[in-house]
Amino acid sequence: MKIALAQINPTVGDLEGNAQKIIEYIGKAKKQGAELVVFPELAITGYPPEDLLLKPQFITDNLSALKKIVKASQGMGVYVGFVDRGGKDLFNAGAFINNGKVIEVYHKNNLPNYGVFDEKRYFKEGTKSSVVSFKGVKLGLGICEDIWVEEGPYKGEARAGAKIILNINASPYHVGKIGEREKVLAKRAKATKAHIVYVNMLGGQDELVFDGGSMVFNSKGKLIASASQYKEELLIIDENGGRIAPKPDRLSEIYEALIMGVRDYVEKNKFGGVIIGISGGIDSALTAVIARDALGNSRIHTIFMPSEYSAKQSLDDSISVTKNLGVKMDVIPIKDIFSQYLSTLAPNFRGKPANIAEENLQARIRGNILMALSNKFGWLVLNTGNKSETSTGYCTLYGDMAGGFSVLKDIPKTLVYKLVKWRNRKKVVIPQSIIDRPPTAELKPGQLDQDTLPPYEVLDPIIKAYVEDNKSVQQIIAKGFDKATVSKVISMIDRSEYKKRQSAPGTRITPRAFGKDWRLPITNQYRSF
Amino acid sequence: MKIALAQINPTVGDLEGNAQKIIEYIGKAKKQGAELVVFPELAITGYPPEDLLLKPQFITDNLSALKKIVKASQGMGVYVGFVDRGGKDLFNAGAFINNGKVIEVYHKNNLPNYGVFDEKRYFKEGTKSSVVSFKGVKLGLGICEDIWVEEGPYKGEARAGAKIILNINASPYHVGKIGEREKVLAKRAKATKAHIVYVNMLGGQDELVFDGGSMVFNSKGKLIASASQYKEELLIIDENGGRIAPKPDRLSEIYEALIMGVRDYVEKNKFGGVIIGISGGIDSALTAVIARDALGNSRIHTIFMPSEYSAKQSLDDSISVTKNLGVKMDVIPIKDIFSQYLSTLAPNFRGKPANIAEENLQARIRGNILMALSNKFGWLVLNTGNKSETSTGYCTLYGDMAGGFSVLKDIPKTLVYKLVKWRNRKKVVIPQSIIDRPPTAELKPGQLDQDTLPPYEVLDPIIKAYVEDNKSVQQIIAKGFDKATVSKVISMIDRSEYKKRQSAPGTRITPRAFGKDWRLPITNQYRSF
Repeated sequence: MKIALAQINPTVGDLEGNAQKIIEYIGKAKKQGAELVVFPELAITGYPPEDLLLKPQFITDNLSALKKIVKASQGMGVYVGFVDRGGKDLFNAGAFINNGKVIEVYHKNNLPNYGVFDEKRYFKEGTKSSVVSFKGVKLGLGICEDIWVEEGPYKGEARAGAKIILNINASPYHVGKIGEREKVLAKRAKATKAHIVYVNMLGGQDELVFDGGSMVFNSKGKLIASASQYKEELLIIDENGGRIAPKPDRLSEIYEALIMGVRDYVEKNKFGGVIIGISGGIDSALTAVIARDALGNSRIHTIFMPSEYSAKQSLDDSISVTKNLGVKMDVIPIKDIFSQYLSTLAPNFRGKPANIAEENLQARIRGNILMALSNKFGWLVLNTGNKSETSTGYCTLYGDMAGGFSVLKDIPKTLVYKLVKWRNRKKVVIPQSIIDRPPTAELKPGQLDQDTLPPYEVLDPIIKAYVEDNKSVQQIIAKGFDKATVSKVISMIDRSEYKKRQSAPGTRITPRAFGKDWRLPITNQYRSF
Repeated sequence: MKIALAQINPTVGDLEGNAQKIIEYIGKAKKQGAELVVFPELAITGYPPEDLLLKPQFITDNLSALKKIVKASQGMGVYVGFVDRGGKDLFNAGAFINNGKVIEVYHKNNLPNYGVFDEKRYFKEGTKSSVVSFKGVKLGLGICEDIWVEEGPYKGEARAGAKIILNINASPYHVGKIGEREKVLAKRAKATKAHIVYVNMLGGQDELVFDGGSMVFNSKGKLIASASQYKEELLIIDENGGRIAPKPDRLSEIYEALIMGVRDYVEKNKFGGVIIGISGGIDSALTAVIARDALGNSRIHTIFMPSEYSAKQSLDDSISVTKNLGVKMDVIPIKDIFSQYLSTLAPNFRGKPANIAEENLQARIRGNILMALSNKFGWLVLNTGNKSETSTGYCTLYGDMAGGFSVLKDIPKTLVYKLVKWRNRKKVVIPQSIIDRPPTAELKPGQLDQDTLPPYEVLDPIIKAYVEDNKSVQQIIAKGFDKATVSKVISMIDRSEYKKRQSAPGTRITPRAFGKDWRLPITNQYRSF
């Protein structure tokens, strides 16, 4: 039997557009001789639809979209994700359609409600497994989390004779995720002695990136076909498998996730262009490169906004990186505006020494200028902060944190350097002088990040241990870190929760980002340091 | 038997402080002759502890705090909420302590995972009901949601002979909630033929306010004792009941919730004072009044920031309201800063007509000034937006939206007027001229809210139908609203999701605020208008 894995990129809420895309892919699969085409989890609504699911009309509209798809499935088998309704309950469901008729509806048995997932907020758990007979072959149905569970529906489906298991997914990317998927699929294939057809969603959705990488394992647990990551694809397989996509290396995988995250945010929200404040530092340089790689150079606008503390090198480096990228750079100095603020505020500030207030003002003037250009020209502001800064609050609320999307939000500074090196591997885009220069916010004379933060090689592993692994101070110190440093870093992370709460979304790359998977109270007197 | 209901205000994460408070209340209860004292749900951790629960050390520390409480319970019965651990699982639990020993641990059977609640993210459901014998009386144990469920643990406990049911809560306030509680308690009392002792938590926690209002119903479903809302209290009852607290009217209840919300945010986060941008409009006036009522006048700082578009009346009204309140007002004009921005931006704006960019700039200058004062003096910025604005995005990101806490975030404009009238009932604090003046943002000549928004009497019910009740456009039109108006409002709500995502937390008053109970995707092409 020829099966098509339709690894598509739907848009959340675009029921009509998604249905059209699904119908188009049914046509493509038919043309290529497939008898069955399999779509991702909740392909009709996009994933995650979040509280759209609480709108009864949305559910009704999704059912109408399903009807259109059913009509368009003449002469084909189709397995597609949608939201089913039963009385007051909703189900994360898969419709198995044969030749223009729904012959089975499967309700997801295992609803993830951890990390970025909130499925128990919306859905009731299905309690049945589903086996359908299609062209003389028994197929077991399931959805996403079902495959991760030892005692999931597939066990019963295999016992009932399923030879092929269809597992449809909206599995978000994080570093190393594809290896975890392969492991579990191989294991489940062996346990069920069935082929596993794993279809993943594609595309960026706010902070999440669905990386595709759909796969087929045979009943011995061997990978016999796979689709690319980060590309819409119709992968055709038969009993012997099909094409096996080459695997990108880890940095390339991360880089592609960042590109897809920002591209889909821009395109799905229909922005014409983006604007980036470029500082001469490595973060804004990398942000500009990623944006250019995602959107092409004509849609990228960069602004260099020098102050009296900006080094000449900052300008030179900004010029060279934007030149390398072929993107326009304007210069808008903030000195006069800053002076005007200081003189306006002088009566209130009188007698007080300069402090963080003056530093933040400069960052906020830059934020205002970017937002003014955004408001004037309709460009999305991309902010340029990294995870090391976001974690510790080493950033200015409404200043460098201003913007609609935060490209590097989940990239620790040490990984920023690795990505730059990787991106420069064939041709230098980001000049070596940017890489070599010690990081600085340039908000006062001679300022360096390392005056406030420990070196990034020390900081980043502490952040990882605390943020991703929920380690205690004692446990982190036991790894060999200095007690005072650990306490300082964790105190900074805890006390800047209010900033994280008001931060822009940005692509999730690590197993735990500052998005749906980070729900810390702001008012919180737990102090473990 | 004398029972004490300890309606306390814990702080999330402050395990030591909360344990101390609990121990102190055990002492008070003992002194007043009580044999049993009952504390709220998760009294040891505060509620909701959110992702603190994912830190193993936090759970361990909470168990240590419980041990201290157990030790301090000599000669007393105590029922107190804590987090229990069993292998890899966590339970939302209640410990029943008798004379220095835990004699029973109840695990919450019914875990809410809707609205503002995420309990299935953290906890495993308990499956057993618990009855303890204490001083010859059988007591049924349970937690919060258990009482809302027909087939909850209390049914079995009553069958097992429980004469008194202890229900401990962290039940957040919204308008009308207390009536819902009374109804369900009366019903459950009758069904179980047992006394119901309902102990609620007190206090503000980020966006939530726990309003207290603990109650006792007898086995006939009659209210026989009640504690105040919004006050820590130790309510002592015996078989015949106890004190019945007077019930505030609805506006007073809302006003007190707003006071508690801002006061606890300020106090628990240890801010010395707050700063408010006062505009001469009704929202900032009400915000200042609430802040003064919450914190006293010496901790309130107000700044009037006129532009060339500010009417003389704005200044006069600001002076009179701050005078009435006895709070200091500074004047910081933004005109020169605004001019400087315009001349700096002139090369980029050349040939473009003035638009929202120039309007937002003014709001953002004000935001910057408030943040600069906040950074210089350590004051919390209270922002002054209301729910009508927040819903529709009729507000400036990083401008009037700047701030750490949003006092009126969940108060629709029409309710702002009602609260002002109520607050003025005995003595006028907010002058009539503020009330009478048509609302204006004063960001361009002659601007009125009603140029952009429909009249608030039309807008607010549309917002309620869409935001709180999940009604569709068709359903809202069917209520008698104009189609074009409904479409416009809903489009504004949908398209400003990115602003809501970056907004400051603010006290939840309605059944659905823009906080944990509002999880809409930003990237969302569902258009029902």
